[in-house]
Amino acid sequence: MPLDSPKDPKIAAKAELDPQNFALANCIRALAIDAVNAANSGHPGAPMGMADAATVLFRNHLKFDAKNPDWPDRDRFVLSNGHASMLQYALLHLTGYEDMTLEQVRNFRQWGSITAGHPEYGHAKGIETTTGPLGQGIATAVGMALAERALAAEFGDDLVDHHTYVFVGDGCLQEGIGQEAISLAGHLGLGKMIVLYDDNDITIDGPTSISFSEDVPARFEACGWHVQKCDGHDGKALDAAIAAAKAETGKPSLIAMKTVIGFGSPNKAGTYSVHGSPLGKDEAALTREAIGWAHEPFVIPDDLAAEWQQIGTRGAKDREAWEARLAGKSAEIQAEFNRRQSGELPEGYEAALKAARDALFAEPKKAATRKASQMALEPLTAALPEMIGGSADLTGSNLTRVKAVDSQYTRQAPGRYIGYGVREFGMCAAMNGINLHGGFIAYGGTFLVFSDYARNAIRLSALMGVGTIFVMTHDSIGLGEDGPTHQPIEHLASLRAIPNLTVLRPADTVETLEAWDIAIRNRHVPSLLALSRQDVPQLRLEAGDENLTAKGAYVIRQFGEGRDVTLIATGTEVQLAVQAAEALHADGLNVAVVSMPSWELFDAQPEDYRKATLGDAPRIAVEAAGKFGWTRYVASEDDVIGMNGFGASAPIDRLYQEFGITTDAIIARAKALTGK
Amino acid sequence: MPLDSPKDPKIAAKAELDPQNFALANCIRALAIDAVNAANSGHPGAPMGMADAATVLFRNHLKFDAKNPDWPDRDRFVLSNGHASMLQYALLHLTGYEDMTLEQVRNFRQWGSITAGHPEYGHAKGIETTTGPLGQGIATAVGMALAERALAAEFGDDLVDHHTYVFVGDGCLQEGIGQEAISLAGHLGLGKMIVLYDDNDITIDGPTSISFSEDVPARFEACGWHVQKCDGHDGKALDAAIAAAKAETGKPSLIAMKTVIGFGSPNKAGTYSVHGSPLGKDEAALTREAIGWAHEPFVIPDDLAAEWQQIGTRGAKDREAWEARLAGKSAEIQAEFNRRQSGELPEGYEAALKAARDALFAEPKKAATRKASQMALEPLTAALPEMIGGSADLTGSNLTRVKAVDSQYTRQAPGRYIGYGVREFGMCAAMNGINLHGGFIAYGGTFLVFSDYARNAIRLSALMGVGTIFVMTHDSIGLGEDGPTHQPIEHLASLRAIPNLTVLRPADTVETLEAWDIAIRNRHVPSLLALSRQDVPQLRLEAGDENLTAKGAYVIRQFGEGRDVTLIATGTEVQLAVQAAEALHADGLNVAVVSMPSWELFDAQPEDYRKATLGDAPRIAVEAAGKFGWTRYVASEDDVIGMNGFGASAPIDRLYQEFGITTDAIIARAKALTGK
Repeated sequence: MPLDSPKDPKIAAKAELDPQNFALANCIRALAIDAVNAANSGHPGAPMGMADAATVLFRNHLKFDAKNPDWPDRDRFVLSNGHASMLQYALLHLTGYEDMTLEQVRNFRQWGSITAGHPEYGHAKGIETTTGPLGQGIATAVGMALAERALAAEFGDDLVDHHTYVFVGDGCLQEGIGQEAISLAGHLGLGKMIVLYDDNDITIDGPTSISFSEDVPARFEACGWHVQKCDGHDGKALDAAIAAAKAETGKPSLIAMKTVIGFGSPNKAGTYSVHGSPLGKDEAALTREAIGWAHEPFVIPDDLAAEWQQIGTRGAKDREAWEARLAGKSAEIQAEFNRRQSGELPEGYEAALKAARDALFAEPKKAATRKASQMALEPLTAALPEMIGGSADLTGSNLTRVKAVDSQYTRQAPGRYIGYGVREFGMCAAMNGINLHGGFIAYGGTFLVFSDYARNAIRLSALMGVGTIFVMTHDSIGLGEDGPTHQPIEHLASLRAIPNLTVLRPADTVETLEAWDIAIRNRHVPSLLALSRQDVPQLRLEAGDENLTAKGAYVIRQFGEGRDVTLIATGTEVQLAVQAAEALHADGLNVAVVSMPSWELFDAQPEDYRKATLGDAPRIAVEAAGKFGWTRYVASEDDVIGMNGFGASAPIDRLYQEFGITTDAIIARAKALTGK
Repeated sequence: MPLDSPKDPKIAAKAELDPQNFALANCIRALAIDAVNAANSGHPGAPMGMADAATVLFRNHLKFDAKNPDWPDRDRFVLSNGHASMLQYALLHLTGYEDMTLEQVRNFRQWGSITAGHPEYGHAKGIETTTGPLGQGIATAVGMALAERALAAEFGDDLVDHHTYVFVGDGCLQEGIGQEAISLAGHLGLGKMIVLYDDNDITIDGPTSISFSEDVPARFEACGWHVQKCDGHDGKALDAAIAAAKAETGKPSLIAMKTVIGFGSPNKAGTYSVHGSPLGKDEAALTREAIGWAHEPFVIPDDLAAEWQQIGTRGAKDREAWEARLAGKSAEIQAEFNRRQSGELPEGYEAALKAARDALFAEPKKAATRKASQMALEPLTAALPEMIGGSADLTGSNLTRVKAVDSQYTRQAPGRYIGYGVREFGMCAAMNGINLHGGFIAYGGTFLVFSDYARNAIRLSALMGVGTIFVMTHDSIGLGEDGPTHQPIEHLASLRAIPNLTVLRPADTVETLEAWDIAIRNRHVPSLLALSRQDVPQLRLEAGDENLTAKGAYVIRQFGEGRDVTLIATGTEVQLAVQAAEALHADGLNVAVVSMPSWELFDAQPEDYRKATLGDAPRIAVEAAGKFGWTRYVASEDDVIGMNGFGASAPIDRLYQEFGITTDAIIARAKALTGK
C-alpha cells in the first residue's frame, strides 16, 4: 500500500497546512493504533487527535535531550489525560529515549513492560509523573512550575529556566482538582506553564454536550490565564500559538485546540467509540489509507525515523550550554545545586536535629503535637533550604509556618511558604509535583479529616514513591467543638491501608521531632503526620540519640517485671495508657506500655523485635479513632479503646468522657482481660 | 446602653439603606456574637457579615413555614459555608422552629445540643443537609435542585415548584467540588437554584488575595450562570437581586455580595481574626454600640422577636394552598406523592424482586457483577419510579443505565438518567442532595478506585444517615490493563472503616440482586456496591426467597462433615475459594466456604450465627485487595490471600497469577495451616 498522501480529502487539507509535521505526527498515530490493536486494549483516540500538537511541541519547542533525560533544566512534559499514554510512549520511542525500545511499545499494557496502561513515573525515562486519575496531571504540573520559579529564585535563571507543558482533556477540566490547579496557577502567575487542551467534544459517555457545556477559555480567563484557541491539526497555527504562549511570561497559558478524536479513522473519528477501544484490524487499514500511511504495523520509515531522532537530540546544545553555565559557578554553588538535585541532606542537618533533640530532653515541654511539629520545623527548616511549606488555608491551625519558611510565595517573588488556598487536593498534587521536579522537599498542612479530599494524591505519591510530607492536624475527636464533620474517625485506618505510605502519629514533642526526621529522610516514601490539636505532656524523658519512632513501636514504660498486660497506644492516647498502667501497677499488675507511632515502620522490624515489643500477655490498644484494623495487634476489637461511630460537637474533655476513651476504660478492660 | 441607632457612622449609613432589615439582621448578629462568646468557640464573622442577606431572604423570599418544617414543597436553604452555623441557628430560632429553643442557642457547640459546631442534618428541623466540609453544600444543593425539576416533571409544577438557595463563602468556591457543582448546574440550567456568595475578601490565613484572585462572577458566567453583584449590607439591593434571580428561570443565579466579615465589630470587622474566634466580652460590647444594639446577651426585644415570628409563619398560606392543590388530586396521585415522600417502596416491588430472583435460579447466568447489577436494575427500576441513576462519565463501564432509567436528564427535560460528567465528588454530593430532597432514590456509578475522589461525600451520607447508593465497578486488579492507577487495593478496607456505611461486594448474579435489594431498602444507611469488571459463574443455585447477602456472610458450600478449614471470600474470589475447597476435599479435608459480601451486615448478626458461620477451624480469607483489616476474622494477615502492594498493568489472568491470588495459593495455605 504505497501511499504518499492521505486518501481522505479533509485529512489531506489538514496535512497540507504543514506537511512535514503531519508526516511526523502520522508516526505517532500509527504506533498508537498498532500498539492498542496489539494489546487489544487501550485508548487510540486521544493520541491520534493530539499527535499533531505533540509533534509541534517536541519538534520546535520542548527543551529536552532524549539521551540525557534527567538533565535538571529540561522542560517538563505532563500528559494529564494519561489514558493517551501511547502518545507519550510513541514520542519517547521516536525521539530516542534508550529505554523506550520498539519491543516495549509492542508490549504495551503487558506484564513487566514499562508501557503501562497509563504513564507510570519510574517506569520509563521522560515520564515526569504518573497520570491517569484525571485532573491530577495538571495539578502536579502546577507544583513543577512552582518549583521552577522557586529554584530559579535561589540559583538564578541561568541555571533554572524551563517551561512546564501539560496536555489535558475534557475530563481533567471537569474534575474539581483541575479548577483548583487552574485557579492557583493563575493566582501565582505561573507564566512558564503552558497547557494544551484537547478540545475534541467527546467524552466516554458520548458527546461532551451531555454533561459539559461551559466556555472553557472564558473560565481560564476568569482565573487569570492567557488564552488562545487554534486548530489542533494545523501545525503552523499550533507552532505560533505555543510561541505566543512562551512570549507571555506573566500568566500561565491555555491553548484550546479544536481536535478530532481518533483523527484519521474514517468510521470512528469524532465518536466516543474510538476513545477507549482498539480500532481493530480493518479500521486500522482504512485509517492507514485515509492518512496516507503505507507501512506495516510498528514500521516507521527511515527518513521519518531519522528526523524524529534528530528532534530527540535537538536539546543537546542547550544542555551543553547549561552544563557550561553550571561549571562556571563557584564550587560551592555547584555542590549545593547538585546536592539539592540528588536529595541528599546537607551537612548541618544532623547537628540541627541533635540540638533540637537535646533541647527537648534538657527542658521537657508540654505541647500539642501540631505545636511540637512547629517546634521541630523551626531548626530543621533552618538547616534545610530545600524545605518548602504551605497549608490549605489553615496555617494558624496546622502551624506549618516557621521563621525559615516564612516568605510568602507570590506572583512577584517565589518564597518558601505557599498559600494553597482551600484546595487540599490541589495542594497535595502540587506538592507531589514540587518533589518530582527536584530541588525541594515539599510539606503542607490541612486537617486530618480533609485528607479525604486529597486522598488520591496521597495515593499517587505512594504509588510513585515520592517523599511528599502531608501534615494533618486535629487528628481525633480532640478537635472538639467543630464536631463530627471535622473529627477524623476512620482516617488513620484508611491511610494505613494505603501501600507504601508511612503514617506517623507521634505521642509527644520527642516523637514528633523523630517523625519529622523520618519524613525528611524518606525521599522515596511519602509520610503523613497525624498531629493533635490538644496538649500532651512530654513522655520521652530519657536522653539519647536513637530515633525510637523509626522502630514504629517500642516500650515507652514498663511497670513491674514481666507483663500481665500490654497497653499499645498512639499519639495523644499514649499518656492515657501510661496513666492507666500506673494505676494498674498500683493494683499489683505488671504492665508494659507500647507507644506505636507507625504501624508500617513497626511491621518492617525484625520478627524478634516485634515479638518482644508486643509480648505474650493480653494486649489492649488505645487510640481515639475507629477500631478498624487494630486486630492486627490485639485479639479482638473488644480490646480496643476507641471509637465505634462518628464524633460529636462538644469540648474535648467531655468528648473523651462520653466516648469512653479514658484511663478508667483501659483499666476496666485490663482487669477483665487478666482476671486480676 | 439604650442605643437606638448605630454609633458607627459607616454602619449607620448602611442601616439607613433599609432600617428595618438592618434591625432584624442585628438580632442574628447579636445571637451569633453571644452564642460564640458563651461557647468560647465558633465562627462569628460570617454570620455577622451575612445577616443582612439572610434577613432579606427569609423575610421576603424563602418559602417556608417554621411550624411545618417538613412541608415537601418548601424552598430549600443550604448554608454551604457551614462554619457560619450560628447564622442558621439564629434564623431557625427567631422564625419559630419549635426545636430551636433559646436554650439550644445558649448551648451552642455543647454535648447533647442540636446546635453543633456545623449544621448537622437530623439535629434540628430546617437543616436540609450537613455542611462544614467546604464546597459540598453547594454540590448537595445541586442535587436538591435537580430533584425538584425531576419531581415536578412527574407530579406537575402545582405540586413541586420551589427554589434552592445556597449561601457560599470563598472556601466553597476554592474547593474543586464547588466548580464541579457550578459547571453541572450551569450545564443543566437549574434555574431555580440561587447562590448568594459571601464575597468578604477574607479567608482563614488572611486576605483572600494570598491565594485567590480570580474573577468569580466571570467564572460563573463562563459556566452558564446568571450573575449579579450587589452590596451585601444593602437590604433593598439584596431584595432586588434575589427578585431578579428568581425571574431568571433558564439559568442558575449567582449573587456576588460584597460583605464585611464580622460586620459591626469596630476592631475586628474585615479581618481574619473574626473568622473563627469569639469576639470576647469587650469587643462584643463595642460591637453592640457600633450597631446600635442595646440589649443584654441572648435578649431579643419584643417587637423584633414578634416580627421574626411573623416571618416564620409567612409561608403558612402558601403551604395551605399547596395542601389544597394536593387534596384536589386523584387519590392515586396523592397516595403516590405521599409514598414517594415517605420513602416506602411500592407494592409492585416485591413481585419484581421475586421474579428476578426466580429467573436467576431457573436459568443461572455467568456474568460480571457489574453486568449482574444491570440485570438486577432492569426489573427493579421498572418497579421503582423513584430510582434516578447516573454515572460520572462511565456509563458503558458501570452499566448503570437501563431501560426504565434511560431518559437523559437535560436542561430541556429532566429525565431519570443523569450524565454527571467526570465529576465523581460532585456526583456523590448531588446524589446525597437528591435523596435529602425526597421523592427519589439516587444511585450513580464510577470506578471503585475513584471513590477516593468522592470519599468525603460518601462519608457525609453515612454521617447524615442518607441512603445514597454508590455503584463502584472495576473493583480489583481484575480491571486489568488500565493498571495500578485504576486498580483499587486499599479501597474496600478504607470504605469498610467508615461508620454507618454498608459495603457490599457480591459474588455472583444472585448476591448482586440481593445487594441491590438491601441498598434499596436502606433508606437511612448509604450502600456501596463493589462490582467486578470480569465474569463470574453463578454460585448460588439453590432456589429460595431468603436474602442471604443480608446476613453479611453465610456458608455457600460445605465439603464433607465438620471443618478442617474455613475459607472466607468476597466477590469474584468466592469462586476461587470454592475451587480450592473442592480440591482440598478431594485430598481429604473437610472445608466450609463462607461468602462474605458485607462485613457490616455480618457483624450485626447475633453472636451464635457469627460463631457458627466462621467456625472454630483455622480460617483463610481470599480477596483480591489489600489485606488490611482482615484480622478481624482470621488469625493473621499471613492467612489472607490478597494483595501486599499496588497492582500492575497486564491482562487479568496474568495479574491474578503474578500476585498469587490463585486456588493453588489457597490450597497451599490451607495445607500449611491444617498440617494435612
